Amino acid sequence: MSLLISNIGSLVTNDPALGTGPLGLLADAAVVVDGATVAWVGPSAAAPAADEALDAAGRALLPGFVDSHSHLVFAGDRTAEFNARMSGRAYGAGGIRTTVAATRAASDAELNANLTRYLAEMLRQGTTTAEVKSGYGLSTEDEARSLRIAAGHTEETTYLGAHVVAPEYADDPAGYVDLVTGAMLDACAPYARWVDVFCERGAFDGDQARAVLTAGAARGLLPRVHANQLGHGPGVRLAVELGAASADHCTHLTDADVAALAGSDTVATLLPGAEFSTRAPYPDARRLLDAGARVALSTDCNPGSSFTSSMPFCVAVAVREMGMTPDEAVHAATAGGALALRRTDVGRIAPGARADLHLLDAPSHVHLAYRPGVPLTAVVWQGGVRRA
Amino acid sequence: MSLLISNIGSLVTNDPALGTGPLGLLADAAVVVDGATVAWVGPSAAAPAADEALDAAGRALLPGFVDSHSHLVFAGDRTAEFNARMSGRAYGAGGIRTTVAATRAASDAELNANLTRYLAEMLRQGTTTAEVKSGYGLSTEDEARSLRIAAGHTEETTYLGAHVVAPEYADDPAGYVDLVTGAMLDACAPYARWVDVFCERGAFDGDQARAVLTAGAARGLLPRVHANQLGHGPGVRLAVELGAASADHCTHLTDADVAALAGSDTVATLLPGAEFSTRAPYPDARRLLDAGARVALSTDCNPGSSFTSSMPFCVAVAVREMGMTPDEAVHAATAGGALALRRTDVGRIAPGARADLHLLDAPSHVHLAYRPGVPLTAVVWQGGVRRA
Ligand SMILES: [Zn+2]
Ligand SMILES: [Zn+2]
Repeated sequence: MSLLISNIGSLVTNDPALGTGPLGLLADAAVVVDGATVAWVGPSAAAPAADEALDAAGRALLPGFVDSHSHLVFAGDRTAEFNARMSGRAYGAGGIRTTVAATRAASDAELNANLTRYLAEMLRQGTTTAEVKSGYGLSTEDEARSLRIAAGHTEETTYLGAHVVAPEYADDPAGYVDLVTGAMLDACAPYARWVDVFCERGAFDGDQARAVLTAGAARGLLPRVHANQLGHGPGVRLAVELGAASADHCTHLTDADVAALAGSDTVATLLPGAEFSTRAPYPDARRLLDAGARVALSTDCNPGSSFTSSMPFCVAVAVREMGMTPDEAVHAATAGGALALRRTDVGRIAPGARADLHLLDAPSHVHLAYRPGVPLTAVVWQGGVRRA
Repeated sequence: MSLLISNIGSLVTNDPALGTGPLGLLADAAVVVDGATVAWVGPSAAAPAADEALDAAGRALLPGFVDSHSHLVFAGDRTAEFNARMSGRAYGAGGIRTTVAATRAASDAELNANLTRYLAEMLRQGTTTAEVKSGYGLSTEDEARSLRIAAGHTEETTYLGAHVVAPEYADDPAGYVDLVTGAMLDACAPYARWVDVFCERGAFDGDQARAVLTAGAARGLLPRVHANQLGHGPGVRLAVELGAASADHCTHLTDADVAALAGSDTVATLLPGAEFSTRAPYPDARRLLDAGARVALSTDCNPGSSFTSSMPFCVAVAVREMGMTPDEAVHAATAGGALALRRTDVGRIAPGARADLHLLDAPSHVHLAYRPGVPLTAVVWQGGVRRA
């Protein structure tokens, strides 16, 4: 079964060989999808026939968003904690432990229903690839089931046993690292593609993070790192040293950190939802881009610090606050996310790529920043199947 | 025909007599709608029967948003200008004149189709009352037809001939004020409820603004003012002096301005979409609230400086950037907008109020700030009719 999408006002291919600029922009374009794959891209006037046809009526077509950083296996939410924080009131019982307790208490069915719901919400906003982390189980059993549930929905599963020291090990962090690099890893590795660690003061230091990542790598898991979110630290340089696909957050960077990223294949994944929802200073995307680093945007969707599932929102905030141009932000949210997941089949619209397509109710990708907050998703195809 | 909405997890009535706090919050609530009107509000367990029933399944119900400031009668958009501004590139031919030229060149049908589309977009995001201004015609004929078209959609029409001096009068601003207060006013008054003026350096000074507002008032139009957006000026104090329903923007205020607002019935309507989309400093809502001023939030939806139609986005930004609590921001976007339009039938859910209701896909109104950018609108009723 083939589908011709014609009369595309503006097509973002992310392939400079197919169009102008880094976005590979084509005006008056058409795309032919054959099964799950993009078969043809070119001028609308030259498009071949197909079994079905859709007139884009001058609207913009983009690659589906690649959201390379989310924490969607959890139960409960933290509305009261958020409300207190934003209202300047103290709140005693908050924090990640609340979500850990709710997640442990939830049934598999409940966790699966929540994950299904949030992924559907993402899809309705144009996200066709979503990475999902564990990290609210913090026991061998709960981390493994979190990843088993996630693996039922996405190939991009990340073992984050080292999210924070489990409450049972509050007095024995070294013992927890032993668990994370031992029995918990054994139980989780079959369900995970990636290993991640929260390398930050109050979570895991550089040595602990290195132990977690190298143990994961020895089991075939590819490293990625929560790095330099709350302050300076060794996370970014460790990520580069270990060849991690991505260093995520990158909010507090030294010149050496920036240079290390720029001289590496490690993507700087920026998560403006976290800064938005915690009133923290934003990462400086401009500095990273000017240095030559690769940049991705992602939601960090989680109930504590960034409960947005909206890649359009992240694009708009990145343009407002982080010095990105609309073109750069859209590139980071699509091709950048694909780079951060070491994927070549998504994040672009070119012959051979997966047919993950996002038709906007707007004539240009710029509208994602120009019309902040407005739901602009018209149609979403995932692997050639119309999903929203 | 009556409708029972039961099992509302959290109901925002905006009536302190009906529930707790300024939002008049009720948990486990129900609402009965009879025709176009709210007939009953109370605990779900005590709800009377009705012809139809809807189980809210624990979700939150709010009054529809009251967006008291928009500029939706226009043609074209300004994507290239926005893109250049956010990309740090010069852009020659931009500005309001571009939209004036496109609007003048458009047919009535085209202007009406655009307005219909943007109002539908608002409705899908929970906005059930929208004020609409003229101001892209700037000739007697084009201002009058703009208002005639707007009056086909909303009672809240605002004559803004004094948006900027028309290009034909570039060398004769006094002549343009004569037109705005003379023949243009005569042609527009039948279609308008309000008169507005852009009182700002580069647009109309205090004396000109006073002339526009008093001429409008003499024709029965109620005053509102674009005031103190780009710098300090006489706009806010003029609004208070003339008993305007609202002073809009209020970004640059002296202590005297704040005191004047606090001692008056004039609402300070804050428009964070404009600051978001122009990278300008935000208004200080906290200062106004602490002084005792009444505050509304609105989109300012227009193609130049704030092309968002999203009240949820404005709520989220107001909490992030303007010192508002989630409760205050939601109040400002509903009850605040109603105050700014001197309406008592909307912006609240209480017996006798218009049945303008917004069911969220979330358990609390706080989620509008907690989940920024996420489309959370489940169902919208306008005058008792399900519209989205
Ligand atoms: Zn994270
Ligand atoms: Zn305005």
